[in-house]
Amino acid sequence: MTEPPMHEQAARIGYLLGTWRGAGKGEYPTIDSFAFEEEVRFTHNGKPFLAYAQRTWHPEKKLPMHAETGYFRPLDDGRIEIVIVQPTGIIEIQEGTYGGSKIDVSSTLVAKTTTAKEVTQLERTIEVDGDVLRYEVRMAAVGQPLQHHLGAELRKVE
Amino acid sequence: MTEPPMHEQAARIGYLLGTWRGAGKGEYPTIDSFAFEEEVRFTHNGKPFLAYAQRTWHPEKKLPMHAETGYFRPLDDGRIEIVIVQPTGIIEIQEGTYGGSKIDVSSTLVAKTTTAKEVTQLERTIEVDGDVLRYEVRMAAVGQPLQHHLGAELRKVE
Repeated sequence: MTEPPMHEQAARIGYLLGTWRGAGKGEYPTIDSFAFEEEVRFTHNGKPFLAYAQRTWHPEKKLPMHAETGYFRPLDDGRIEIVIVQPTGIIEIQEGTYGGSKIDVSSTLVAKTTTAKEVTQLERTIEVDGDVLRYEVRMAAVGQPLQHHLGAELRKVE
Repeated sequence: MTEPPMHEQAARIGYLLGTWRGAGKGEYPTIDSFAFEEEVRFTHNGKPFLAYAQRTWHPEKKLPMHAETGYFRPLDDGRIEIVIVQPTGIIEIQEGTYGGSKIDVSSTLVAKTTTAKEVTQLERTIEVDGDVLRYEVRMAAVGQPLQHHLGAELRKVE
């Protein structure tokens, strides 16, 4: 397949492109807190969006923990649309804003398959500062109010 | 990261694992019919699902056309839950059944970002016959009733 140049619309969040690795922590009132290592990849195919793929693994056991994948579509007016799927059967439609190096979105829809856990709202903030990518995920789920759930700091490796 | 063995639940649709390539055709009352080449990959990470990634490109120009990604989770009772996102801003929750080599699902939810086109229903059939994977996508969208939209025949290459 031909490798097309980056689309000018995708280039508006071009600071995300590449492979990022690092460590993070998760917490929620209904579970034990946990640490993870993580890899995030943003790629483009010449169209007006970036593809997003993420996976985490246990810091000592090195076994897979979470994974998710989706697409980031920045619009011309500073808004951004993001769709993400999680293998547990959760899908997210996220909308919000992007700036020079920061993306802030809140779910317009979180839905689930029959057997997945109930998640009612998700918010995500992603910020790039040079070679460092930091993100936070806030979640309302299983009857708990919206609150901090995940945070990680990654460094660009490719 | 350690490569764990395949989860016995994922193994129930283990016939999908690998990389498949081939050609397909798309049609719909509101657009010109089109041909495409395609690659589909199913991978596992030791958990009870398979990860799904797909991309198509123009047969002559070799430029990217469609892409989508998601997860397939077979349950113990012959049912299967599938979540898929498309970069145009469409998300699908698909539920149905899997058999020895055939998966039949119908959307319990199709939703979209603000700027995406209206899609109201999607059905997917995937069948593996030895080294051949055939699929069909049926779609109700932009006011049209549910009907054949996409079909392709792929061969296992890895």
